[in-house]
Amino acid sequence: MRVLALLDGTLADPDAPLIRADDLGLLRGDGIFETVLVVDGRPRELDPHLDRLARSAAMLDLPEPDRAAFERAVGLVVDNWTGGREIALKLVCTRGAEGGDGTPTGFALGVEVPAKAIGQRVDGIAAVTLERGVEPGLAERAPWLLLGAKSLSYAVNMASLREAERRGAAEVVFTTSTGSVLEGPTSTLVAARGRTLTTPPATLGVLPGTTQAALFRAAARAGWTTEVAPVQADDLYAADGVFLVSSVRKITRVHTLDGKALPDSAQLHGELADLYESEY
Amino acid sequence: MRVLALLDGTLADPDAPLIRADDLGLLRGDGIFETVLVVDGRPRELDPHLDRLARSAAMLDLPEPDRAAFERAVGLVVDNWTGGREIALKLVCTRGAEGGDGTPTGFALGVEVPAKAIGQRVDGIAAVTLERGVEPGLAERAPWLLLGAKSLSYAVNMASLREAERRGAAEVVFTTSTGSVLEGPTSTLVAARGRTLTTPPATLGVLPGTTQAALFRAAARAGWTTEVAPVQADDLYAADGVFLVSSVRKITRVHTLDGKALPDSAQLHGELADLYESEY
Repeated sequence: MRVLALLDGTLADPDAPLIRADDLGLLRGDGIFETVLVVDGRPRELDPHLDRLARSAAMLDLPEPDRAAFERAVGLVVDNWTGGREIALKLVCTRGAEGGDGTPTGFALGVEVPAKAIGQRVDGIAAVTLERGVEPGLAERAPWLLLGAKSLSYAVNMASLREAERRGAAEVVFTTSTGSVLEGPTSTLVAARGRTLTTPPATLGVLPGTTQAALFRAAARAGWTTEVAPVQADDLYAADGVFLVSSVRKITRVHTLDGKALPDSAQLHGELADLYESEY
Repeated sequence: MRVLALLDGTLADPDAPLIRADDLGLLRGDGIFETVLVVDGRPRELDPHLDRLARSAAMLDLPEPDRAAFERAVGLVVDNWTGGREIALKLVCTRGAEGGDGTPTGFALGVEVPAKAIGQRVDGIAAVTLERGVEPGLAERAPWLLLGAKSLSYAVNMASLREAERRGAAEVVFTTSTGSVLEGPTSTLVAARGRTLTTPPATLGVLPGTTQAALFRAAARAGWTTEVAPVQADDLYAADGVFLVSSVRKITRVHTLDGKALPDSAQLHGELADLYESEY
């Protein structure tokens, strides 16, 4: 089941071609995206997603996305969905055709949440640490590297996931060469210790997480301490729980890191997953 | 004038949509490309371009591109071209539709060489150095970063060019944080000193240049020494000539670097441009 909605308020056939060969989103990965989770017809964190889309657009010097048009497209996908309870809803905006008039290409595409992701929410995952080639300070002094922008140029993120598979794992924890934790290729890292949740700071060049923010909101209300602070990869082995969180995977626990079992966080995972769900 | 040819040996309307919304080349920049220069109906360095396309495919774990199909598509574009003397001919290959059967999407798209590039071949350009966040050794120890692959994930390359424009320049020379020269966002750097041409080594994570290789072949035949060796950005000011070379820009001289005039290399540029042309 897939539903494709355009920014002019119409539906389009998801099996038909939509994008020209010379669209810069294709030729240069020159565009931005968001993935929104929709559950039972209700989009989660839509405003933070649209805020982040606008932030990514600014980082790429793209025109500000037409928020109302994207909201309408989201509504169209939701209203026309006849698939499962959940939708992984991608919002995409590119720089448009090369040498064109600068009109961006945009759409909202709803697809089923992959069965694998749903299984991983329950079973947890093995992850490996992989160096990302990003040093502390780089994101701030070199904004042209687009660190922390959610661009369509995700070939490295996808290659990292394939490297994880080669190493017998399902996911990646990116690190700096000094062993500081960054994020997953398509997720935010959250570590739990005692009653404190920690996530690495956006200043390192990681994407501010919408699901992480929702979890932190809920956890803070329940009496947890939440902090944004550097995390060393070595410290993950001593954490009570390590989680990769994103719209589609929700709160997924990491049970194994670089082939080494982490402390059993199944119960803690249940508590945090319930907290996250309590936001909706 | 644009001509679009598909891998099945047919032509397609370049103004019509070709790519599905869920193509991973679009959603993830997950694909590869080459840009071939065609002059007077003759593609230049087609074999090295197709070799490099295959090398990029291997780096991205993509199926090996169908070389014969790409050669046929190149021929189709050339045979149906009614525009100017030169064609910038893009070869594109993506991972295909998300959750599809793994059939790659591929095409050849011929477009006019931008007037700006043609002017720059004559007038030269101002460039700025920008840090790329790549340290020596990183490309070899972290192949998942795809350094040296010509992927569709070029958002950073495009953002760097916009940063150059903001600084009053047309081009970028990427450097490591230790001041070693890498390449341009879509070009190879060549420095001349005495009768020696130098380009930075691919082991640093730069793309091996097809135009640079052609220039080095011709120069070596004419008695130049050619070497692949690290170049410090500071040393560029003492070079007799600094050039950014690529299929579309051919041999373009850098006359100004970070706002500082470089030694006049107009005559040297003429000599090297003639050498390069002598290959065809």
